[in-house]
Amino acid sequence: MRPLPTFTTSVVAVHGTTATAKDDQLALEEPLEIRLGHGPANNRQRANIAVTMRTPGHDAELAVGYLVSEGLLTDPADLLAVVPMDANVIRVDVKPGVRLNLDRLERRGVMASSCGVCGKTTLDAIEANIDFTLPAGPRVAASVIHSLPAKLHAAQPTFAATGGLHAVGLFDANGELRSLREDVGRHNAADKVIGGEFLAGRFPLHAGILFVSARASFELVQKAAVAGVPFFAAVGAPSSLAVQTAERFGLTLLGFVRDGRFNIYAGRQRIDFTAEVT
Amino acid sequence: MRPLPTFTTSVVAVHGTTATAKDDQLALEEPLEIRLGHGPANNRQRANIAVTMRTPGHDAELAVGYLVSEGLLTDPADLLAVVPMDANVIRVDVKPGVRLNLDRLERRGVMASSCGVCGKTTLDAIEANIDFTLPAGPRVAASVIHSLPAKLHAAQPTFAATGGLHAVGLFDANGELRSLREDVGRHNAADKVIGGEFLAGRFPLHAGILFVSARASFELVQKAAVAGVPFFAAVGAPSSLAVQTAERFGLTLLGFVRDGRFNIYAGRQRIDFTAEVT
Repeated sequence: MRPLPTFTTSVVAVHGTTATAKDDQLALEEPLEIRLGHGPANNRQRANIAVTMRTPGHDAELAVGYLVSEGLLTDPADLLAVVPMDANVIRVDVKPGVRLNLDRLERRGVMASSCGVCGKTTLDAIEANIDFTLPAGPRVAASVIHSLPAKLHAAQPTFAATGGLHAVGLFDANGELRSLREDVGRHNAADKVIGGEFLAGRFPLHAGILFVSARASFELVQKAAVAGVPFFAAVGAPSSLAVQTAERFGLTLLGFVRDGRFNIYAGRQRIDFTAEVT
Repeated sequence: MRPLPTFTTSVVAVHGTTATAKDDQLALEEPLEIRLGHGPANNRQRANIAVTMRTPGHDAELAVGYLVSEGLLTDPADLLAVVPMDANVIRVDVKPGVRLNLDRLERRGVMASSCGVCGKTTLDAIEANIDFTLPAGPRVAASVIHSLPAKLHAAQPTFAATGGLHAVGLFDANGELRSLREDVGRHNAADKVIGGEFLAGRFPLHAGILFVSARASFELVQKAAVAGVPFFAAVGAPSSLAVQTAERFGLTLLGFVRDGRFNIYAGRQRIDFTAEVT
């Protein structure tokens, strides 16, 4: 397989107490809207099936595979064409006369939807949910960031037994763990942390660091932005759209936080090195 | 945080050419339907917002956090109550008079849906999509399974650059790589592989091993089952529902496939140890 296109960005690479500017390559993440064209040739109908956040490349395979997985396509002979509509919209046409069980879509809750998250609209739609500006602070010492992985791991009770759970921790600016939640889905673990603070009346979360035992996807950074969290830190890599989201909304985004290192992808001004230089 | 409940299952642990029966603890994965109760007190309306596959525990936090992330809840003072309806359904009520921007839901494609995947219905709904029985074979040598991680890693071109992509590989019963796709979402990578085979007219995928550089969630095993794949193998841990899905549909499910070891969670009869014993 040929490598997929990547997105190059400038980062500050922190190792212990030293910081170096360098380039970093990110996996691309963009929305793809999948449409289905069906019905008789003279009255072709269209259903908007789903929007998935994906890495561009092999979009026809992705759209067809999604429809197969959802039980809508069962026989390769039913396919008529796969038509790219634009960079992030694709339509799969089935032959006239092919019966589709569209009822399934309604049951699954993915019935006729237009793409509310395609392209630029994605970040605009988030912005509509944010009625505050993130505070300039707090500033956090690099040593606090270095301490997060061990603290999260030590406090993750179920992972050790199963190896099957993601964890999301909410830390304060001094690196004290305020909340930890685990889930098979990292997005659920983030929602549990955010919902717990909201239920306790602590909202928005302007003083917090959200730290995830996973990669930083668009979805997770979006949740942090909407909750007002100024710091998002991940054990793994961020995607291109995660970085763009952090930049747009003024979050500090840190990736590869492990083994005494991390990369700053956005919001460098909130990381305090001066306390480190001895 | 107290540990979450886990699910204990019997596995065959393979290490090199030896196999040992033992118990293994799995992270729970079950659907949660999130509903929103709103409107005036004398005419309370209900919207079914989403179904998420989650680890049970902190469900009220999860439901509220999800609604916050989606921009539907913005002020803790708007909350009236969070009402568990049954083990896998929860309703969040807002106070009468609170204005909700439900248009957002329609744009996001999660408009009024009933839970088509809750509880037992989940596996029944998948079964409706499967119009074949998985073949008894092929049988695969344990040595072939041991060889998968290095082959997948060697063929994963974009991961090395970004650290930000999942890979899904389709191997034949001799361990030869037939297709590899990468994506920020493991579900997308699986759909790309399945869609590619479907587009090439090779469907169902009755001779294949689907190997993922990730944990084995319900969603991924579901995709394999619907595509007719008899072997599902993962670098990481399976969830409880992933194992139940494999058992129900007769897949062979392997987890923790790495470093010369793997666990057999279902479909042991397709793994051939005799070729190994020397």
